[in-house]
Amino acid sequence: QSILILPGDGIGPEVAAAAKACLQAVAELEGLEFTFSEAPFGGAGIDACGEPLPEETLRAAEAADAIFLGAVGGPQWDHAPKRPEQGLLGLRKALGLFANLRPVKVFKGLEHLSPLKEDRVAGADVLIVRELTGGLYFGEKREGDDEAFDGCSYSRAEVSRIAEIGFKAAQGRKGKLTSVDKANVLATSRLWRKTVNDLSSQYPDVTVDHLYVDAAAMALVTHPARFDVIVTENLFGDILSDEAAVVAGSIGLLGSASLGASGPGLFEPIHGSAPDIAGQDKANPSGAIASAAMLLRYGLDQPKAADRLEAALEAALLHDERTADLGGTAKGSAFAQSVLAHIQ
Amino acid sequence: QSILILPGDGIGPEVAAAAKACLQAVAELEGLEFTFSEAPFGGAGIDACGEPLPEETLRAAEAADAIFLGAVGGPQWDHAPKRPEQGLLGLRKALGLFANLRPVKVFKGLEHLSPLKEDRVAGADVLIVRELTGGLYFGEKREGDDEAFDGCSYSRAEVSRIAEIGFKAAQGRKGKLTSVDKANVLATSRLWRKTVNDLSSQYPDVTVDHLYVDAAAMALVTHPARFDVIVTENLFGDILSDEAAVVAGSIGLLGSASLGASGPGLFEPIHGSAPDIAGQDKANPSGAIASAAMLLRYGLDQPKAADRLEAALEAALLHDERTADLGGTAKGSAFAQSVLAHIQ
Ligand SMILES: CC(C)[C@H](C(=O)O)[C@@H](O)C(=O)O
Ligand SMILES: CC(C)[C@H](C(=O)O)[C@@H](O)C(=O)O
Repeated sequence: QSILILPGDGIGPEVAAAAKACLQAVAELEGLEFTFSEAPFGGAGIDACGEPLPEETLRAAEAADAIFLGAVGGPQWDHAPKRPEQGLLGLRKALGLFANLRPVKVFKGLEHLSPLKEDRVAGADVLIVRELTGGLYFGEKREGDDEAFDGCSYSRAEVSRIAEIGFKAAQGRKGKLTSVDKANVLATSRLWRKTVNDLSSQYPDVTVDHLYVDAAAMALVTHPARFDVIVTENLFGDILSDEAAVVAGSIGLLGSASLGASGPGLFEPIHGSAPDIAGQDKANPSGAIASAAMLLRYGLDQPKAADRLEAALEAALLHDERTADLGGTAKGSAFAQSVLAHIQ
Repeated sequence: QSILILPGDGIGPEVAAAAKACLQAVAELEGLEFTFSEAPFGGAGIDACGEPLPEETLRAAEAADAIFLGAVGGPQWDHAPKRPEQGLLGLRKALGLFANLRPVKVFKGLEHLSPLKEDRVAGADVLIVRELTGGLYFGEKREGDDEAFDGCSYSRAEVSRIAEIGFKAAQGRKGKLTSVDKANVLATSRLWRKTVNDLSSQYPDVTVDHLYVDAAAMALVTHPARFDVIVTENLFGDILSDEAAVVAGSIGLLGSASLGASGPGLFEPIHGSAPDIAGQDKANPSGAIASAAMLLRYGLDQPKAADRLEAALEAALLHDERTADLGGTAKGSAFAQSVLAHIQ
């Protein structure tokens, strides 16, 4: 199976290297054969070819079985004609990666990292299913000096396919799906809610409730453990998944999967490119390693290998010296070595 | 000066009664003459006249010096042809109430109410300035069975006038303005950011920074005390102001002001209509009383009266028996009496 690595910008290359080492170690133990290739993307794509998503990178992505991304962006491209983030949006669209899965949980032994009181955050374990190729992100845009416009549309088919992912995910978890919208204000949200309700009869084993996005933003802070699976549209998902990650105290520890109906998925840590610490071996590779595990599970259908890697990451987080962001003194590469040691 | 009271739905009437009693008590002590009138609005408007914003209510609102609103909404109107919330959106638009001020702070003696650890929430004192008559809320909508659309537009003039409110508010506080947008994705956000930056040279005493909305949703949980004034567009403001309120543990304690360029302002607690406890004298009137203080300050330009009422509310919260939502045993009316006692 072929894995394309897009190291990207800032701390992207270092955490991607850690993820790759873990994938190689797991492959060896599980008797899997992975071939790795690399391509420029994001700011690195702009520097190499003038494009955040170079044509050749896109072709390599289309041909891969799964894609790993480090991180994109940085201040040096703030005034570039094209921005690194456009590469990410372009890749999502080109590969039809409509489903973004963002599991958020509190890691054992790391409960104290949450900014919430321990009794508030106890039991929080949420999967956010974010629609990723529709809504305001990809609507018509008009940009003038005195007026600007963004269009937001959703079709029933677009809502159905992401809602189905949410229902199925809930079936494999606690059977609870919370659909988040702003149906008291938005037409697209009313279509969203109707579509989710129409589908719910096909999933009698899933309990559905609906929250307005403002209420959801509150409940994630006051009662994070009330959620099982959240399904929501692109922009709401962007906001709520980041909010949920910090509620769990886990921004540096979490991975994400972006999946299409077919073709390769894209796997990336949820943290940014952190240019301030790039190249200093300070970055925590945990989010990248968690993403590598998701790549194994959802991208290559290798659940045993995924379990093994997740267990190793959790063991290292629990027992070994942690990186500075978690209050430890380990370098990023040293922590990656700890994870590797638990894989063996 | 004339004050129109819109009791609205659920717990709206009870908390509005408490607010009115406080306004009367303060007026007496300060030698002010207020005349009060009342009109149906929201669900109560639908029940009385078939409209959430009856024509006569709108006329009374236009004629008033300031408007106090209890709360709107409730499940009994979920399937009504018009919804209570439409009355609120209609009133905002009709009166040109483009500036929503939502101060969020942790009350002395109530620090423990925050779901955040005390050291995380210490010092949090944020004013959220939300644009209230533009963006997705008031854009073109299309609603079909298979497709839906919401348009989002902003003009430079719309952004300027709300940004100015933000800059001026920052001048009267700690001199720090954080503008929140999603300029890496949205055309309207890029216009927003440019407009804020263009204005900033006129306010050399204000430090400006920009955050993407996902980063802002994180920072409100991880470092709420980093903020002074936040200025943002309508939908982001809806989400972030509710998130900020629960971070401070103060959802039942906070008021809001919605102001136009001229004409009466609208003042309402940020909590909802809480139909489950309506009519049982359980509702905490603090948010309504805080809103009444904002009505005095921003609506009627009576800062001394506002200070007096705020001091009385804070004293009652600190020294007297609190309502059930704050862990106490006081009825809502009893707590209102405590506040009245501190006014004298
Ligand atoms: C970089 C940005 C365009 C992107 C988004 O908003 O989708 C990021 O915040 C994310 O969540 O992956
Ligand atoms: C009731 C609803 C339409 C309203 C809004 O979204 O503006 C409310 O959430 C608010 O914040 O005042």
